Amino acid sequence: MPGRNIIRFINSLKQKKNRLHYRLFIIEGEKAVDELTESGHEIHSVCATGEWLSERRLSEGMTVFPGRGQNSTTGKIPLHKVSDTELSRISSLKTPNRVLAVVHMPSPAFEPENLAGSLTLFLDNIQDPGNLGTLIRSAHWFGIDNIILTRGSAEVTNPKVIQATMGSILRVRTHYVDPATFFGMPEIAGLPVFGAFAGAPDIYSAELPGHGLIILGNESQGISGEVEKFITRKIGIPPFPGKGKSPESLNMAVAGSIIISEFRRRRPVIIQNERK
Amino acid sequence: MPGRNIIRFINSLKQKKNRLHYRLFIIEGEKAVDELTESGHEIHSVCATGEWLSERRLSEGMTVFPGRGQNSTTGKIPLHKVSDTELSRISSLKTPNRVLAVVHMPSPAFEPENLAGSLTLFLDNIQDPGNLGTLIRSAHWFGIDNIILTRGSAEVTNPKVIQATMGSILRVRTHYVDPATFFGMPEIAGLPVFGAFAGAPDIYSAELPGHGLIILGNESQGISGEVEKFITRKIGIPPFPGKGKSPESLNMAVAGSIIISEFRRRRPVIIQNERK
Repeated sequence: MPGRNIIRFINSLKQKKNRLHYRLFIIEGEKAVDELTESGHEIHSVCATGEWLSERRLSEGMTVFPGRGQNSTTGKIPLHKVSDTELSRISSLKTPNRVLAVVHMPSPAFEPENLAGSLTLFLDNIQDPGNLGTLIRSAHWFGIDNIILTRGSAEVTNPKVIQATMGSILRVRTHYVDPATFFGMPEIAGLPVFGAFAGAPDIYSAELPGHGLIILGNESQGISGEVEKFITRKIGIPPFPGKGKSPESLNMAVAGSIIISEFRRRRPVIIQNERK
Repeated sequence: MPGRNIIRFINSLKQKKNRLHYRLFIIEGEKAVDELTESGHEIHSVCATGEWLSERRLSEGMTVFPGRGQNSTTGKIPLHKVSDTELSRISSLKTPNRVLAVVHMPSPAFEPENLAGSLTLFLDNIQDPGNLGTLIRSAHWFGIDNIILTRGSAEVTNPKVIQATMGSILRVRTHYVDPATFFGMPEIAGLPVFGAFAGAPDIYSAELPGHGLIILGNESQGISGEVEKFITRKIGIPPFPGKGKSPESLNMAVAGSIIISEFRRRRPVIIQNERK
C-alpha cells in the first residue's frame, strides 16, 4: 500500500498550478496506460489495483515495464498497489479504471520548419476541456502532428482534456504560443491560413491544400481579432435546410473535425506518397 | 417569490422517472428559452431572475409570452421570480443563466412515410448524454428532422442532453423504437441503411443518396447485432497516416457528424430544390 503522501501528492495534481509546477500530469485507465507504456513517454509512477497487477504479473515496488516508457535516470518506475477506495480518491473519473499513471510533461522543441509541408491545427482560446480533448483526438486520427494553442486556451493536461483525447495526447505535439510571435516566424509567414467562420464560403467547394494552418476560435466568441488578421482564407460549413430554423452553430469540436476531415478527403493519396 | 413546492417540484425533474411520469423536462438559459417561446412548444412554467424579468418588462404571475408557446388550456404561463440561490438549486448548470423553463414533452406521431424521401439518423444505444445532445445539434444543422433511437440509448430529456443540443431539441423529432418493429415497417423496409463501422469502406468515395438511414452505434460496443442485420451498406471514416500510430476511433458525436456532413456535401442543391 502506498503512503498517504503519494496519494496526497497525486491528488494535488488535479490542480493546474501543481501540474505546471511539477511538470507532471495524470493518465487514467487500462487502454491509456497501455498506450503510455508503448509511447516512449517518461513515466513518474503508476498506481494500480491488486487485480490489475496480478493480471500483468507485476508486484508493488520499482518495476521495469516491458522495454518501454522507463524513467530515464533509474530505468525503473515506482509502482504502487492501491485499493479501490484509494484509486477513487486520486481519480478524476466517475468510475475509476484499475490503473493510473503519473507522467512527465513532454516539452517538445517547437520546430516551425516542420509545419511547412503539413497540416496544423491552431486553437484560439478554446475553453471547453471536452472540446479540446476531442479535437486532439480528431487531429491525431487525421494525421495532424502539431497543435498550436493560444495561451487563453484550456490547458492540455487538464484531466478532462486528457480523458477526452482517449490516449491521443501521447501522440501529438502541443505548443502554446503568442499569436503575433508565431505568425511572425519566417517559416510560418508564407503558409496558407484558414479560419473557420459561420457563414464564410462553403468549405465543400473551396480549394484546400494538403498543408497550412486551420484556425478554430472560442466556443462563443469565435476567432479573436488578434488572430483573425493572420487569416488568408475564411471557410465555413453550410447548414442544410430542414423544416425548422437552422441552429446558430455546430459544436466546436464537431465543426473543427468536419473541417479537418474535408481537408483530408481532398488529398488521400498525394500526402501518403510524400511520406514514403 | 415561488413557494418551496414549485422549487421542489422542478428539482424532482432532474430524475428521469419524474420527467417521464409528468412528461415534463427543463430548458435552461436565455437563448434556449427565447428559442422555446418561438418554437410553439407547450410551456408548463418559467422561473426567472428579477433582472431577466425587468429586461423583458414581465412581472411574476400568469403571463402571455409575445404570441407564442402558450399553455393550450389557459393561453397563459405561470411565471415565477426566483433568486440566484433558488435558480442554482433547480439548475443543472454550473453557472445558472437567469431563466429556466419547464416544458411539456412533445409526443410527435411517428409517421414512417415521412422518412421515405429524407435522411434520418438512427442511434443504437448511444450512452453518453453529451454525445447524444451534440448529435441532435448536428442533425438539426444538416437538416435531419427525425432521429430514431433504440430504447437502450440515453434519454433525450436528460439535462445534459438538452444542454448539448443548444436548443436543437426543440427543432427535431425523436422517436424511441424497437429495431425489429421499426425495420419491419413497409415504409422503412425499402430504404438504404448505412451503418458506421471502423475499417468499413471509405465514406469519401462511397455512393451516398440524399435519403435513407444512417446508423451509429454505442461508444464502445459499436452497432448491436440486432440492428446490424438491417444494414445494407457499411461505411467508415478512414484515418490519415500521421507520424505515430492511428487512434482506435473518433469520438462518436464527431464521427456521426462527419458522416452526416459527407452525405449532405453530395446533394447540396438537389434537395434544396425538392423542398421548394
